[in-house]
Amino acid sequence: MSSTIVGHLIHGEIVTTGKRSQAVYNPATGEATKQVMLADQSTMEAALTSAQAAFPSWRNTPALKRAQVMSRLKVLLEQNADKICRLITDEHGKVLNDAQGELQRGIENVEYASYAPELLKGEHSKNVGPSIDSWSEFQPIGITAGITPFNFPAMVPLWMWPMAVACGNCFILKPSERDPSSTLLIAQLALEAGLPKGVLNVVNGDKEAVDALLTDPRVAAISFVGSTPIAEYIYSTGCANGKRVQALGGAKNHSIVMPDADIGNAVSALMGAAYGSCGERCMAIPLVVAVGDATADALIAGLKTEIAKMKVGPGTDVSNDMGPLVTKPHFDKVSEYVAIGVAEGADLIVDGRGIKVAGHEQGYFLGACLFDNVKPGMRIYQEEIFGPVLGVVRVATLQDAMDLINAHEYGNGTCIFTRDGEAARYFSDHIQVGMVGINVALPVPVAYHSFGGWKRSLFGDLHAYGPDAVRFYTKRKTITQRWPSAGVREGATFSFPTNK
Amino acid sequence: MSSTIVGHLIHGEIVTTGKRSQAVYNPATGEATKQVMLADQSTMEAALTSAQAAFPSWRNTPALKRAQVMSRLKVLLEQNADKICRLITDEHGKVLNDAQGELQRGIENVEYASYAPELLKGEHSKNVGPSIDSWSEFQPIGITAGITPFNFPAMVPLWMWPMAVACGNCFILKPSERDPSSTLLIAQLALEAGLPKGVLNVVNGDKEAVDALLTDPRVAAISFVGSTPIAEYIYSTGCANGKRVQALGGAKNHSIVMPDADIGNAVSALMGAAYGSCGERCMAIPLVVAVGDATADALIAGLKTEIAKMKVGPGTDVSNDMGPLVTKPHFDKVSEYVAIGVAEGADLIVDGRGIKVAGHEQGYFLGACLFDNVKPGMRIYQEEIFGPVLGVVRVATLQDAMDLINAHEYGNGTCIFTRDGEAARYFSDHIQVGMVGINVALPVPVAYHSFGGWKRSLFGDLHAYGPDAVRFYTKRKTITQRWPSAGVREGATFSFPTNK
Amino acid sequence: MSSTIVGHLIHGEIVTTGKRSQAVYNPATGEATKQVMLADQSTMEAALTSAQAAFPSWRNTPALKRAQVMSRLKVLLEQNADKICRLITDEHGKVLNDAQGELQRGIENVEYASYAPELLKGEHSKNVGPSIDSWSEFQPIGITAGITPFNFPAMVPLWMWPMAVACGNCFILKPSERDPSSTLLIAQLALEAGLPKGVLNVVNGDKEAVDALLTDPRVAAISFVGSTPIAEYIYSTGCANGKRVQALGGAKNHSIVMPDADIGNAVSALMGAAYGSCGERCMAIPLVVAVGDATADALIAGLKTEIAKMKVGPGTDVSNDMGPLVTKPHFDKVSEYVAIGVAEGADLIVDGRGIKVAGHEQGYFLGACLFDNVKPGMRIYQEEIFGPVLGVVRVATLQDAMDLINAHEYGNGTCIFTRDGEAARYFSDHIQVGMVGINVALPVPVAYHSFGGWKRSLFGDLHAYGPDAVRFYTKRKTITQRWPSAGVREGATFSFPTNK
Amino acid sequence: MSSTIVGHLIHGEIVTTGKRSQAVYNPATGEATKQVMLADQSTMEAALTSAQAAFPSWRNTPALKRAQVMSRLKVLLEQNADKICRLITDEHGKVLNDAQGELQRGIENVEYASYAPELLKGEHSKNVGPSIDSWSEFQPIGITAGITPFNFPAMVPLWMWPMAVACGNCFILKPSERDPSSTLLIAQLALEAGLPKGVLNVVNGDKEAVDALLTDPRVAAISFVGSTPIAEYIYSTGCANGKRVQALGGAKNHSIVMPDADIGNAVSALMGAAYGSCGERCMAIPLVVAVGDATADALIAGLKTEIAKMKVGPGTDVSNDMGPLVTKPHFDKVSEYVAIGVAEGADLIVDGRGIKVAGHEQGYFLGACLFDNVKPGMRIYQEEIFGPVLGVVRVATLQDAMDLINAHEYGNGTCIFTRDGEAARYFSDHIQVGMVGINVALPVPVAYHSFGGWKRSLFGDLHAYGPDAVRFYTKRKTITQRWPSAGVREGATFSFPTNK
Repeated sequence: MSSTIVGHLIHGEIVTTGKRSQAVYNPATGEATKQVMLADQSTMEAALTSAQAAFPSWRNTPALKRAQVMSRLKVLLEQNADKICRLITDEHGKVLNDAQGELQRGIENVEYASYAPELLKGEHSKNVGPSIDSWSEFQPIGITAGITPFNFPAMVPLWMWPMAVACGNCFILKPSERDPSSTLLIAQLALEAGLPKGVLNVVNGDKEAVDALLTDPRVAAISFVGSTPIAEYIYSTGCANGKRVQALGGAKNHSIVMPDADIGNAVSALMGAAYGSCGERCMAIPLVVAVGDATADALIAGLKTEIAKMKVGPGTDVSNDMGPLVTKPHFDKVSEYVAIGVAEGADLIVDGRGIKVAGHEQGYFLGACLFDNVKPGMRIYQEEIFGPVLGVVRVATLQDAMDLINAHEYGNGTCIFTRDGEAARYFSDHIQVGMVGINVALPVPVAYHSFGGWKRSLFGDLHAYGPDAVRFYTKRKTITQRWPSAGVREGATFSFPTNK
Repeated sequence: MSSTIVGHLIHGEIVTTGKRSQAVYNPATGEATKQVMLADQSTMEAALTSAQAAFPSWRNTPALKRAQVMSRLKVLLEQNADKICRLITDEHGKVLNDAQGELQRGIENVEYASYAPELLKGEHSKNVGPSIDSWSEFQPIGITAGITPFNFPAMVPLWMWPMAVACGNCFILKPSERDPSSTLLIAQLALEAGLPKGVLNVVNGDKEAVDALLTDPRVAAISFVGSTPIAEYIYSTGCANGKRVQALGGAKNHSIVMPDADIGNAVSALMGAAYGSCGERCMAIPLVVAVGDATADALIAGLKTEIAKMKVGPGTDVSNDMGPLVTKPHFDKVSEYVAIGVAEGADLIVDGRGIKVAGHEQGYFLGACLFDNVKPGMRIYQEEIFGPVLGVVRVATLQDAMDLINAHEYGNGTCIFTRDGEAARYFSDHIQVGMVGINVALPVPVAYHSFGGWKRSLFGDLHAYGPDAVRFYTKRKTITQRWPSAGVREGATFSFPTNK
Repeated sequence: MSSTIVGHLIHGEIVTTGKRSQAVYNPATGEATKQVMLADQSTMEAALTSAQAAFPSWRNTPALKRAQVMSRLKVLLEQNADKICRLITDEHGKVLNDAQGELQRGIENVEYASYAPELLKGEHSKNVGPSIDSWSEFQPIGITAGITPFNFPAMVPLWMWPMAVACGNCFILKPSERDPSSTLLIAQLALEAGLPKGVLNVVNGDKEAVDALLTDPRVAAISFVGSTPIAEYIYSTGCANGKRVQALGGAKNHSIVMPDADIGNAVSALMGAAYGSCGERCMAIPLVVAVGDATADALIAGLKTEIAKMKVGPGTDVSNDMGPLVTKPHFDKVSEYVAIGVAEGADLIVDGRGIKVAGHEQGYFLGACLFDNVKPGMRIYQEEIFGPVLGVVRVATLQDAMDLINAHEYGNGTCIFTRDGEAARYFSDHIQVGMVGINVALPVPVAYHSFGGWKRSLFGDLHAYGPDAVRFYTKRKTITQRWPSAGVREGATFSFPTNK
Repeated sequence: MSSTIVGHLIHGEIVTTGKRSQAVYNPATGEATKQVMLADQSTMEAALTSAQAAFPSWRNTPALKRAQVMSRLKVLLEQNADKICRLITDEHGKVLNDAQGELQRGIENVEYASYAPELLKGEHSKNVGPSIDSWSEFQPIGITAGITPFNFPAMVPLWMWPMAVACGNCFILKPSERDPSSTLLIAQLALEAGLPKGVLNVVNGDKEAVDALLTDPRVAAISFVGSTPIAEYIYSTGCANGKRVQALGGAKNHSIVMPDADIGNAVSALMGAAYGSCGERCMAIPLVVAVGDATADALIAGLKTEIAKMKVGPGTDVSNDMGPLVTKPHFDKVSEYVAIGVAEGADLIVDGRGIKVAGHEQGYFLGACLFDNVKPGMRIYQEEIFGPVLGVVRVATLQDAMDLINAHEYGNGTCIFTRDGEAARYFSDHIQVGMVGINVALPVPVAYHSFGGWKRSLFGDLHAYGPDAVRFYTKRKTITQRWPSAGVREGATFSFPTNK
């Protein structure tokens, strides 16, 4: 059926030609429901040619006009929210209201992009020397590209291209081939909102498409979100090809619970942070570091109670707390990690394996898993699992907890639960992590701040979305201007000019 | 003689141990006057260890205190200006008042670094959600490094390390081994100004030192200024090692002269821009594009007249307009380019070869050279000569001139001479160059703006010094904070958090 | 008929009670079409009480939520544009497409207010001292008020209250009683967009209402746009009552035409600037200063030709260039100024008096009037006429023209027509006027910059809308925070704290 | 003796002519040591004429040059610190190291003014419409003036004029006539640093001088720090004369101590905040609100112990904790307040009256006074005493404490002592005070933030020093620029221009 083909969006048209394609599954049923086309060289060439053609006119469009396209897109996204979220749930598996949360965050990035006239202001200095003025302009860099992961098919692309195009660039988006439909629909809405053809092209694909973006000289900048090994590959390959690159990788976010914390509050927050969206979030909390055994015991007790109340089932039923994992291979991999944890000697307090969801027996459902006595060195401590597996680590002091975090290879997000101002300030100052929560388990920065981890969680210097994205998607041009005064001939100066 | 050894500055001490060294010449006499030590692995290790030791305390020092060290350094630089400039002239060759101009520009970068308390302000948002606040902190990234060229031994290092350390980083500087002494003296003055030991280490060296910086995991960021092939190597190697890198490369800056320009003014400005410091500047103007033959003829006439008045000789005599080239090999290379130009068919209007400076017969002196009818495709058009060789290109229209510039591989600086507001605005908007002058031949941005070219003149996303340097030398940390209210237990939320 | 009563909007309801009212006329027909209620003390009290009640909850609403109300209002304004513009034309008289232009500008101010989350960011400084942090919050000031003029019944209120409420304030708007309906409709749309009751109250009224706002201690800030004598009264009275006030007054904007200007272009621009909206704009150009008699002669010739093509008639017919003046008294006053100009010795080149519009014989129509040889000292030079009367002043040099402008009591807007970069720069630097156009006859700043004149055109320090409005509508709060470290007792310090 | 005459500084010269003068006392000895001249109309005229003459050239001086004068002044202030502080102590009475703290704070304001090139950057927008650019310039406003109080003769003037002149203005300073010498010396150092004659004039005087500044049309802006009744007079009179005014008035700062506070820490901090500089600071803490009787009892006990250790005596002896009050009338007034407190029923726990300092029997020394059970309604609760009198108020809850503060007429500074993050955040959010400390008793913002209270502690919209001062001392000019393209004639547009 042609309706089950997910194509590319190139120069304003859906393109479904090409030789290669791949199945898209509904993880709640295990059925292949669609085929997504995989871009080959000619598709990539078409996308690049389209972007090149669109650029000159778009970069000359006043920022206010570009921003107003974003305002209209925001309205269309709100109007089409149900349709978009349904596509997310069908292909990713997450519960519908979780999809709505994702979309709402994405919309806020569209809103921020609509502030472009303010964000693109340059700096003007009068009289940098006698009658000499100088100012900066933040000009678009040309064709920019984004490569995005499966776990937020609506939100992560919206971190990137709205700001890129609001800054006057063209953008080529390669979303995840596992759940491409919501991404594509949103791009079509952008056209409806008035984005000219070619300003945003969407190509579905795999490594062939990625490598085309990484090596083609027409691509000036690349934003990536995914796992650390790929992020590292993107960063080094893109940079070796002379591009600017920001590549966001993996995470293993620790949450610290202090003895003075409101344990009930911490438990509630951790349930969402650990198991929401099956833990398939780079900001999820898979590790809790309890300071003191009493704290650990109380936490474990609370978590067990809450886990017992959880409902697992298809994401289309909003009474469920957790849907399926995204694919069968991922389900197998996460399940395997649970076995590894047991083998490594951690105490499996709650085992979510073997869960059956009536009527969805082929779905990739895994219940919440909880380990106690997880320790550094264990693979379940060290590696990113990306599943509903929470481990409790026991330490004696805040400093011990912080030392653990600072020694870990990742530095994406972290959180402390405490009532104490001093503990919170010391923690947030000295922790080697890019996004810090104080009694906030998922400290995802709002759209008007920027998102980024430290250490091996991000390669590059500028973070995603927010103010940093404006700088990433623009080139600085500095103009220095002096107008000749009539009849004045200045003597030649062979020395380097100063402001003296 | 021990006094002629130029060592490293490590942890506050001059270090002259090591196996390898290299001669430093006085280009005005051709004499080897000093030996500069070349760092080996153990020297690099000492520098890195020192920086690591110094970092924790320095990053905790309030920004105001760090800035005040810069204020004191500024005073010391002014007090020691003569001594510093003398070292520059002795090793680089440029005329003393040109060295003073260079130093003054460097001092202005120190001044800008002293604004750190203002520049490091983060963004604070109250109520990003109900009773949730969020803010950003721009924290130092740790050990940063700089690799700098021979042509501005005082200024280019001052573009880098003052801002890096004002932001709370430690810095390892590897200056040019051809003229290392002024750089080293300035670093010693920083210690005198109160910079703690180890915050700034200076290592002299060659590729061995560079590669140590590029690959050592303790180095978080690298700033480079030099030629494009090396810049590209630095960028790709540094990035492949997971670092943030900004690498500034070569240039071939064109100046356009319009028929309505004040020719006398343009000639004066071009004399300085083409021949000042022997053209050994990445912002020098080696090409003038004259719009219309009448413009070209008038320009040539004016330039010939001015060149005839030029005095070439040792930089210690400030009545000279031009000193020697930096080294014998460079002298030979530039001389060879003049021959190439003739062979390629350009018209050599003024030939500066064969000049003799009485009493300095072994100095590397080359007189001003002027070509007419230089054309794209010629090597003297395409390649960076970095010598006192100015070429005139003749075109019919402004658009022709701009097309030439936009087609060139480099995009560092450019300039237009005109009285017409519309021509200037069209030019500055559409030219693919990072630093644009309007009737300003050397549009080097002032210290409170940022310096950077486009295309193959800069690899990376953030420009050197000014506001961009603050972002380059800091990591963004975003904190999201909610304080628990007493007695309130919030229900678990499994959905992704939004601001709804 | 109840439908012809224009009431107040208080706490979300239209209120039409009260003893006093006044007729609203259709200036194209001279008919009284509505009655507008005039607020008495009890109405004012109701408005203030409502605002006070609404404030605590609104100021606690996250800025993003407040901004999203503005986004929704923008959509509603676009959807209701025809209805709003029709009301403007019916009561003010301006031609419909001019009303659309006004509304579009107003919508852009709503857009800017929707950037509030970005605009309200405070400044955060870590380690202002050892372990001491400090940051600023820009908190709402409480109840703010606006008093707006007849000439832009949609736009000028939208300069004020959207930003005020986006910043978390409540707002009481007293629009012009001559054309109150479009203002009121827009306020109702704000409610529909989600603005809570009482956050915006609209009171129609006269001096009684104004004085209540000026003296009531619950009003924290007042924005005013009107004539200079009233602006001065508002400023001095409001300030004497301890409020912050910004009061925008009158104007007499000069445009300079240089001999090198594109005369055709200047004539076209001046026709719109002088006669658009009958000259009833504080940014209108009632005076052209021609540099050189040849320039003046060419200008006069061009203007005469264009005036001859103008169509005057009701604003509902968009083929008309100019509608009626706003009221009969204003029509009489402007007509009288034409007579004065003749008496003062200026040359009346085109006399627009006595015009008859068929079918609209009672409308307040006045044709375009053009004077030559207007001179300083004449009342038609010195005073604000606010009608379709353009005067040409002849001078010899740019400096003469600038001296005239700098000597005038007003300094709202000005413009120069030239091709010369130097002339434009000298003019814009040294002219004592707040809004300067270079080949732009109506240099009204866009919504993301700020609007304000100098000298007696504005009283106060912060301009209207744009970035200045954010500061005007917020109070700065600076917080300095140190958390006590356990077990540490600090010795008493009797000296003033420093950062040493 | 001529050396004991304190004159004016006008156009670079000390002026001691004039008819009126007044004695300056040493408060530690009660002796009249100098005579300060009081300006009459002709002196004021000379100052204004001088400033007018200096303005055109100074406003054209590049901001970098103006900033560099501030950098040099900073060095001179550090070099002359002992001399300046000695003058402060001799005339004001505060202990020398307290004077040093004051001066250091003042120097930091000079440092901030030296950032002017960064602070004065305007906002530049390319393409606000097709090929139309717009930008803002922050131009100096002309002649600005400052009127400063006796309690910080070095620091408060340095809040004002360095930024005013760094922005390109001229400044007329009228310092307190009670301790004018350090102020004058600093102004002389500014000349030595390179400030041109007339850019800063100092006039000593009384109401005659003040009224001249308030009414003269040449003065564009006035900054004032003093008592609330005078601040109100300055604000209303200055505004009625069309000026921009910022007027900082009185204070009655409350500190809250929560039951969880580190009492030892709070006591130490409060000793300095209440008795430092004899309480003659607008940021002093004269009231402590203890939450809970146990807190109050512990506080009282701690304060009694510390007070018993205090040393009172001449400020020249740095082993003293407290010097004399500034004048005999002020000594009498503060002593009278102690009697009033007793009469009103507050419990006088420590009575500092009747203290004798050997060898300084005529000095205005008053020991530390401590009241318990101070209550709203008492004059010692309501009124600003400006002396070493601390009152303890007892309440039951944090909300009670905050209600007290919010009901008070002043809102300058406040502080909370607690360990609890939530209490601190709730307090800082909802308290109606401009400067808030969290465990910081004297939350004076650092120089790169701004200083200002709320309610009747400040009249105007922009705070003193820091970022707000830049806006206060500049006028915004917005330029909109379009360059005509050759041969294009645009049709007349009669509608209001939009960006459509």
